[in-house]
Amino acid sequence: MEKARDVYRSYGFAPIDTPALEYAEILLGKGGEESDKQLYRFQHDRHDVALRFDLTVPFARFAAQHIGQLGTPFKRYHLGPVWRGENTQKGRYREFWQCDFDTIGTTSNASDIETALVIHDLMRDLGFERFEVCINNRLVLNGLLEELGFAGKDAIAAVLRVLDKLPKAESQDEIIAEMIAKANTSADQAKRILSLAALQGENAEVLAQLEREFGGNARAADGIARLRELLAVCAMAGVPEGKLRLDLSIARGLDYYTGTVFETFLLDLPRIGSVCSGGRYDNLAGLYTKQELPGVGASLGLDRLLAAMEELNLLPKTATPAPVLMVQFDAERLGDYQRMARSLRARGIGVEVFPEAKKIGQQLKYAETRGFRVALIAGTDEFAAGVWNVKDLSARAESKIAEANVAETIRAILTKV
Amino acid sequence: MEKARDVYRSYGFAPIDTPALEYAEILLGKGGEESDKQLYRFQHDRHDVALRFDLTVPFARFAAQHIGQLGTPFKRYHLGPVWRGENTQKGRYREFWQCDFDTIGTTSNASDIETALVIHDLMRDLGFERFEVCINNRLVLNGLLEELGFAGKDAIAAVLRVLDKLPKAESQDEIIAEMIAKANTSADQAKRILSLAALQGENAEVLAQLEREFGGNARAADGIARLRELLAVCAMAGVPEGKLRLDLSIARGLDYYTGTVFETFLLDLPRIGSVCSGGRYDNLAGLYTKQELPGVGASLGLDRLLAAMEELNLLPKTATPAPVLMVQFDAERLGDYQRMARSLRARGIGVEVFPEAKKIGQQLKYAETRGFRVALIAGTDEFAAGVWNVKDLSARAESKIAEANVAETIRAILTKV
Repeated sequence: MEKARDVYRSYGFAPIDTPALEYAEILLGKGGEESDKQLYRFQHDRHDVALRFDLTVPFARFAAQHIGQLGTPFKRYHLGPVWRGENTQKGRYREFWQCDFDTIGTTSNASDIETALVIHDLMRDLGFERFEVCINNRLVLNGLLEELGFAGKDAIAAVLRVLDKLPKAESQDEIIAEMIAKANTSADQAKRILSLAALQGENAEVLAQLEREFGGNARAADGIARLRELLAVCAMAGVPEGKLRLDLSIARGLDYYTGTVFETFLLDLPRIGSVCSGGRYDNLAGLYTKQELPGVGASLGLDRLLAAMEELNLLPKTATPAPVLMVQFDAERLGDYQRMARSLRARGIGVEVFPEAKKIGQQLKYAETRGFRVALIAGTDEFAAGVWNVKDLSARAESKIAEANVAETIRAILTKV
Repeated sequence: MEKARDVYRSYGFAPIDTPALEYAEILLGKGGEESDKQLYRFQHDRHDVALRFDLTVPFARFAAQHIGQLGTPFKRYHLGPVWRGENTQKGRYREFWQCDFDTIGTTSNASDIETALVIHDLMRDLGFERFEVCINNRLVLNGLLEELGFAGKDAIAAVLRVLDKLPKAESQDEIIAEMIAKANTSADQAKRILSLAALQGENAEVLAQLEREFGGNARAADGIARLRELLAVCAMAGVPEGKLRLDLSIARGLDYYTGTVFETFLLDLPRIGSVCSGGRYDNLAGLYTKQELPGVGASLGLDRLLAAMEELNLLPKTATPAPVLMVQFDAERLGDYQRMARSLRARGIGVEVFPEAKKIGQQLKYAETRGFRVALIAGTDEFAAGVWNVKDLSARAESKIAEANVAETIRAILTKV
């Protein structure tokens, strides 16, 4: 979470929190049928309320209400829990944390591009090397659907919902059958849609092929041009080759996306699904205000990512946020222990004072279990001599240090690798 | 929140989050009648669930379940929202944030003392100078009640609940009447309780008087000794005189406290109530486990504190977390703008790239409104010459700087006061 905050802030996103509870009408019908069914919804004080299922819809509501004071463009990040009443599995919980960032108030592709850059920098700063940000633009698919005669919003949404199941489907035939049944396509139309989704190759080849096939449709052409600019700018900005990949099968389940969409996969753990997803949603806030309020953003799935990091052994084993344990050797000297501890804290060195005057062995055992790096010990002799016994716990070495030099000695121990 | 995290971590508290929803039975009957009434409670998937009303009760439940793996003592902090269906007012919302820290697994007074130190250091680091941490110990009052013949837990809780209303009462008579009516005391008993609560004076005087009056009662004597040690150790540890004050009227509304209790007041805004409160709760986790699991901790009321800081003009006016705005002068050069921005971010300088190639005046107006410190501008001429136009927005000065020296120039501007 700290890394996410740092990356978001470095791009100028400011923190905004919205409440966990919203009026149910704000949330209903925004994420699609599935999302409506999963809502934690109840009556309170004669209000029909629900826990948010994502951070984007409440932000759109908030922005619509306050955009007059906020001004545009407006960039915010929000780290917080969301709730979906679905079946739990590893890395997938009913309460889970999202780390969102969004830019609102502009249709400019520069913000879509920045979204890709933020996702990339975030994954890199979290310590991942083998990942891929997959990018698509719904305009391309919408262009194809338009050509096939699917014009209405609901008709398109039905197709997208089926397409979104592609990665988990056993066969293409399963998806074709479902498209015919649930999205009212013909078998030929379903095959045409699937062949677009299956387009593979180098980004440049895919772009060229898209232009050949759909360049004549204005909507699709706009989508293709935005994808081309995104890839070009990210390359110039220094994103390494291979980190961004055009993937025409990325549809995103949620109904509100209208343009660029993103999903991010760990190459070593593809089956856990996307760990950072998002896209452009130009009409979402329009449900709450007459002002046009287009937006683009993405969301880091924190719990899924943590489950992945655990599996990949990327999480450190500790333990304590303070590196120094002050042993409570003599209960009568608690004032001295806390005095010393506070003076070290004032110099930026975290110190935990053990709360009971237990045997030293027990306290040092605690220090070891928790992963402390240094123990400080002082009794009558040390106080008489004005020194502290500084114990380097990993080197299993100790020395008596004059009080004025303790901070410096500890710092030297902590900066050793 | 960052300051709170820093202080907690410097004392060795580690972050632990618990879910917002708990089974209702976990939360019911823990905070008292008022708290039960205010629960956001509902049925989900045939479970009786509720949103937590504080962070302490869920932590006690969590600790009881996991103490085997955690080991004791165990120190955690948790920043998160809690929900109470009460009437809203300035700085008092139905969803509000608490920043808790707790030490569990020890009855040692050292942990009560540390709690006082953390509260003090937190308030100081948040920038407050005129505040007072008020301290009491329920054992003293319990000793008096014992002498008066009130032995049962419920009888004592009834007295405490009335006493907790003292600061808001119009007169002592009002409280005496309520104590007779709701806590079954006689008028004389009520007066005796109120005279203890009204004890005033220097800490040393109050301690001396308590010892004279209640030193003979073992329970009260234990409470007095703990208060005495707390004040002595905090003074030795360097807490300035006057920051900690014995206040026998502090009862804390919640039922689960058993020993030391804390409330913290801003001297310039006493009427907003306590901004950091807590205490010792030795039997709370015992409701969920047979293992003894005493605890002590406190909670910073973030929303109330923010309302106070706003009123006291302690909040900065900005705006943007990134100090540099990259003007989008030429849309064709977006790749160059993001390349430069990313190289500055890599050196720790936050940069926002304006998403549209609007008129420079408009972009600089945006920079001013949001509080950016530096603007970077480059067009065809600058790119040809390999320079960037670096604009110091507060000094209203600009100069053309070679690309390699831009970071250094910006750093110089940012470090000026």
